[in-house]
Amino acid sequence: MTGWVTVAGLGPGSDVLVTPEVTAALAAATDIVGYIPYVARVAPRDGLTLHPSDNRVELDRAGLALRLAAEGRRVVIVSSGDPGVFAMASALFEALEGRPDYHATDIRIMPGITAMLAAAARAGAPLGHDFCAINLSDNLKPFAEVERRLRHAAQGGFAMAFYNPRSKSRPHQFNRVLEILREECEPARLILFARAVSTADEDLNTVTLAEATPEMADMRTVVIVGNAATRQVGRWLYTPRSVSDPVPE
Amino acid sequence: MTGWVTVAGLGPGSDVLVTPEVTAALAAATDIVGYIPYVARVAPRDGLTLHPSDNRVELDRAGLALRLAAEGRRVVIVSSGDPGVFAMASALFEALEGRPDYHATDIRIMPGITAMLAAAARAGAPLGHDFCAINLSDNLKPFAEVERRLRHAAQGGFAMAFYNPRSKSRPHQFNRVLEILREECEPARLILFARAVSTADEDLNTVTLAEATPEMADMRTVVIVGNAATRQVGRWLYTPRSVSDPVPE
Repeated sequence: MTGWVTVAGLGPGSDVLVTPEVTAALAAATDIVGYIPYVARVAPRDGLTLHPSDNRVELDRAGLALRLAAEGRRVVIVSSGDPGVFAMASALFEALEGRPDYHATDIRIMPGITAMLAAAARAGAPLGHDFCAINLSDNLKPFAEVERRLRHAAQGGFAMAFYNPRSKSRPHQFNRVLEILREECEPARLILFARAVSTADEDLNTVTLAEATPEMADMRTVVIVGNAATRQVGRWLYTPRSVSDPVPE
Repeated sequence: MTGWVTVAGLGPGSDVLVTPEVTAALAAATDIVGYIPYVARVAPRDGLTLHPSDNRVELDRAGLALRLAAEGRRVVIVSSGDPGVFAMASALFEALEGRPDYHATDIRIMPGITAMLAAAARAGAPLGHDFCAINLSDNLKPFAEVERRLRHAAQGGFAMAFYNPRSKSRPHQFNRVLEILREECEPARLILFARAVSTADEDLNTVTLAEATPEMADMRTVVIVGNAATRQVGRWLYTPRSVSDPVPE
């Protein structure tokens, strides 16, 4: 039996957002590896071994998957959303980099519906023009780098999607993000707080930058900041496709 | 009968990347509206009217969908990729803005696998750290604005995904994009040209910025420019999750 590793995106939560490609991979797997709540989304069955693990052990998890595949197992590493967006795909290649003996492993990355696009769809089309995706966690980069990127994104006229905006270990940091945005953007700038999209806990909240508070976000929230042209029509939030304003000097 | 409009993302091409949510909407529809090649992806059946239209008539198409829904029809506007990323969702809300009489229309946006994430998955994980998505078409914005965003994205240390990099009507523009990148980034910066991902015409090509030429892109290509840390491991292209370099002063 030839083993393989697939890194599969489960989407934001609902089964109707899981691609048929991912469903087929899960059905063919002998082993599921991943963060506890994502592994819990896979139904147990005979012949399938579940390997749930805690957060922040991404490299160990990737190493386990490569080792199992070398033994001939068919391994799916499950990610929430899309595995290539602040998730397990990069961690797998980091683990692979240190193990040339695993370079011939049969690896596939299967895309999924990432949180910002699920949230944008629910709210309307706030990412309908140029945009950035920024991971606000400073686990893997200094906060000064986050700040530098926020300013370039704002000055460049990009809409922005923030992943991991807030955690218990750094409760004050998202407040600093809002302060930086207030320095760079007008008070009426629209911000969407989208929590647990496509699950029973889904909650959407659109406010202005002047109204936004850190408590509006937690680790299940994706935050979308519109660009200067983002507006509301009826109950919808959207960013026009065109730029009509003159380019600043 | 109560009509509705759904804007559905068909993903990059393969049926295994179409979500069950979108498949169900297509099965429930009475009318399919969209750009000719996307409507061609929907199988004809009794009771289903297809309304294919040419490119650059997005507002007319959105208006048709709203009018049909007001008549009680169940309308799916089909987009390639994700409808919220440089596609039909924003156009629908633009059309809605001018028609308050349609504001109560039952509208849903259904996300899809957008081209940059399908391309990234095929190549590895080049968007595994902060990134921007930029539409290079200047149909709807001045090229000076494209240039300004490219420089902010490069200076901010973002990876970049370019949609609509090149067309017959503006063959020289992508050359100018490469010139700007050469001013902002080192010659060894890695660039992925991903054409027609998940279709029979799929073609992936990773080169350095020094090697890149305008002819490597066409309108079926999504271009991904790595950040300074993006590298290759075996046949894979990936961007590490962490920033280890010091932040420039």
